[in-house]
Amino acid sequence: MNLELPTRPKPDQAIVRPVIADCDIHPCLAKPSDILPYLPKRWQEHAQTYGMLPRHGYQSGPAYPKGQPDAARLDSWPPEGRPGSDLSFMQKQHLDANRVELGIMTVIAPAAGAAQNLDYSAALARALNEWQVAEWTSKDKRLKASIVVPYEDAAAAAAEIDHWAGHDDFRQVLLLSRTAEPLGQRRYWPIYEAAQRAGLPIGIHAFGYGGYPVTGGGWPSYYIEEMVGHSQCCQALLTSMVIEGVFERFPKTRMVLIEAGLAWLPSLSWRLDKHWARMRSETPHLTRKPSDYIREHVWLTTQPMEEPEKRKHFRDIVDWIGPDRLLFATDYPHWDFDDPLWSVPVKLDEAVQKALFLDNAKRLYGIA
Amino acid sequence: MNLELPTRPKPDQAIVRPVIADCDIHPCLAKPSDILPYLPKRWQEHAQTYGMLPRHGYQSGPAYPKGQPDAARLDSWPPEGRPGSDLSFMQKQHLDANRVELGIMTVIAPAAGAAQNLDYSAALARALNEWQVAEWTSKDKRLKASIVVPYEDAAAAAAEIDHWAGHDDFRQVLLLSRTAEPLGQRRYWPIYEAAQRAGLPIGIHAFGYGGYPVTGGGWPSYYIEEMVGHSQCCQALLTSMVIEGVFERFPKTRMVLIEAGLAWLPSLSWRLDKHWARMRSETPHLTRKPSDYIREHVWLTTQPMEEPEKRKHFRDIVDWIGPDRLLFATDYPHWDFDDPLWSVPVKLDEAVQKALFLDNAKRLYGIA
Repeated sequence: MNLELPTRPKPDQAIVRPVIADCDIHPCLAKPSDILPYLPKRWQEHAQTYGMLPRHGYQSGPAYPKGQPDAARLDSWPPEGRPGSDLSFMQKQHLDANRVELGIMTVIAPAAGAAQNLDYSAALARALNEWQVAEWTSKDKRLKASIVVPYEDAAAAAAEIDHWAGHDDFRQVLLLSRTAEPLGQRRYWPIYEAAQRAGLPIGIHAFGYGGYPVTGGGWPSYYIEEMVGHSQCCQALLTSMVIEGVFERFPKTRMVLIEAGLAWLPSLSWRLDKHWARMRSETPHLTRKPSDYIREHVWLTTQPMEEPEKRKHFRDIVDWIGPDRLLFATDYPHWDFDDPLWSVPVKLDEAVQKALFLDNAKRLYGIA
Repeated sequence: MNLELPTRPKPDQAIVRPVIADCDIHPCLAKPSDILPYLPKRWQEHAQTYGMLPRHGYQSGPAYPKGQPDAARLDSWPPEGRPGSDLSFMQKQHLDANRVELGIMTVIAPAAGAAQNLDYSAALARALNEWQVAEWTSKDKRLKASIVVPYEDAAAAAAEIDHWAGHDDFRQVLLLSRTAEPLGQRRYWPIYEAAQRAGLPIGIHAFGYGGYPVTGGGWPSYYIEEMVGHSQCCQALLTSMVIEGVFERFPKTRMVLIEAGLAWLPSLSWRLDKHWARMRSETPHLTRKPSDYIREHVWLTTQPMEEPEKRKHFRDIVDWIGPDRLLFATDYPHWDFDDPLWSVPVKLDEAVQKALFLDNAKRLYGIA
């Protein structure tokens, strides 16, 4: 085994934690019915009659076993409710303890955007956005929300973005990576147009479910495969965004890939550039090579961070991607939480470190 | 644009071509009906009545537009028939001209293993194997065949392997990457058992079609996306082989990933190791970390080769994978043919170069 982690401080050593932005925090309903007060009466009745069921249930993906109950750290269960559902518990355990100056919230369960009934999908998205303000961002100014949208109905999603545009508490539009069709396709363009109009980045969180298995060759057996597969889905969706011309059509798009890994980005870009150089006649709407779009328009969150055996390879990858494009994230309260103290596998330059942990996020999300 | 190729020799410069093994040559039927004499009468009638139609037709994948007619080099059309169908033309244009000492043939169209009628799938595989001997390997001793198998019926596939085991002209078992279920699953295990019994490597060529889109998020629009997607499929199938325990169960398995790229292998391995370290309780049948299996059991063909902007990154990738694990391939006669003279993006050590171009293949395929 050669999976050593960076040296952990000894228990009696003074630990100086860096001030961080955490670009992937998952607040959660204590129980599903807590969303009811935020839904109009018609949809309260719908949820109570038919259940609150996006594709494949309450979860944000097919029902593979998870690493832990609720996919959560065992110590993240508050006295009542589910992990991520209690603000004061989260403040104590995470925001204060880990010196989080800026926390970007990503509500992925329930996966409102994946509900089959599109009107319900829109109502649920609106309710979750109202809930985020009422229960979270209005109570803790460190927290900023991502706009949940009914992404399979792009017109309704655009309307939801327009509704919140300019609201100080919303700093991002949130999509999931597994959709009914690849995310670059034109049915989704009104979402990118609205995000550009609102001046908001688009965060695409791994997971979701559009009806297809995570692999191009059918349904895998194990959760490990599903987890590793997410990065392949994100490779495919980024390919789709580039090749369909989203960045050409909406040149102010800033896209954040959340929880998708990052070490695959260079090799994907090389392959895209190579094929595009030979087949560019298929895509006359593109004026630049794929890696140019990627370098201009794409940010990535760090968790779960790859850990090369030769640690210098991590530095090579950071160099290729650009140290200004990486956003630290913990994924709190999920089981695969990355601790800011020892999750970065190499010692980075101090400036790079500060950019990665804090400055990049503040710049991207417009925090003074 | 920063996609420069290695310096090409000037037209008046003497060119010394290396002697090579080409581990991906596609012989082809001049016309589909040329297979009829090799089929039993019952299946001749079937093919003539119902058509020779594996999933999605004659092609080895969904009907995306190809880079060229027949996905072939424009100069590879022989006087009669289709590219790759005329041995003497292939000898002149490729085997002699490019100093091919060993050519591993991979018949991927028709994708016999993907035929829905499993009895027909088996008959077509047998016919293609008989045809390879009669028309190719018996006529040119440089050429060695891969056993086409009806891979969705593993028992029949194992019988086909047993039938040819020990035959001097067959040096590999051939699968395609997009199958009905991920290739590590136990329904396919009899194939790996038979290959191990026969002492043959298993070549898995990108492409094929199992019913699912190449992405986990639906059907892409462009051929470029399909082409780039193949490497994601191969990431998923390798994940499946590792996590399902194929290499644990069949420890002599040698697996060759053909036309899948190679630069993604390190980042995939890092991610697999990381998730496995945390979730190994899900897979108690694994006794070693995923990258250990990969390093022991996996070979990769080079074409289409990634071309990093910083050429030294190519050398880093070769180092990680191991220079003894790479097999040169041209993909003749397809349009994205890699010329041995200038397709490797960096100058490699002479020993590494010789291993990559010739020695690794001779050792793997047991050529004296």
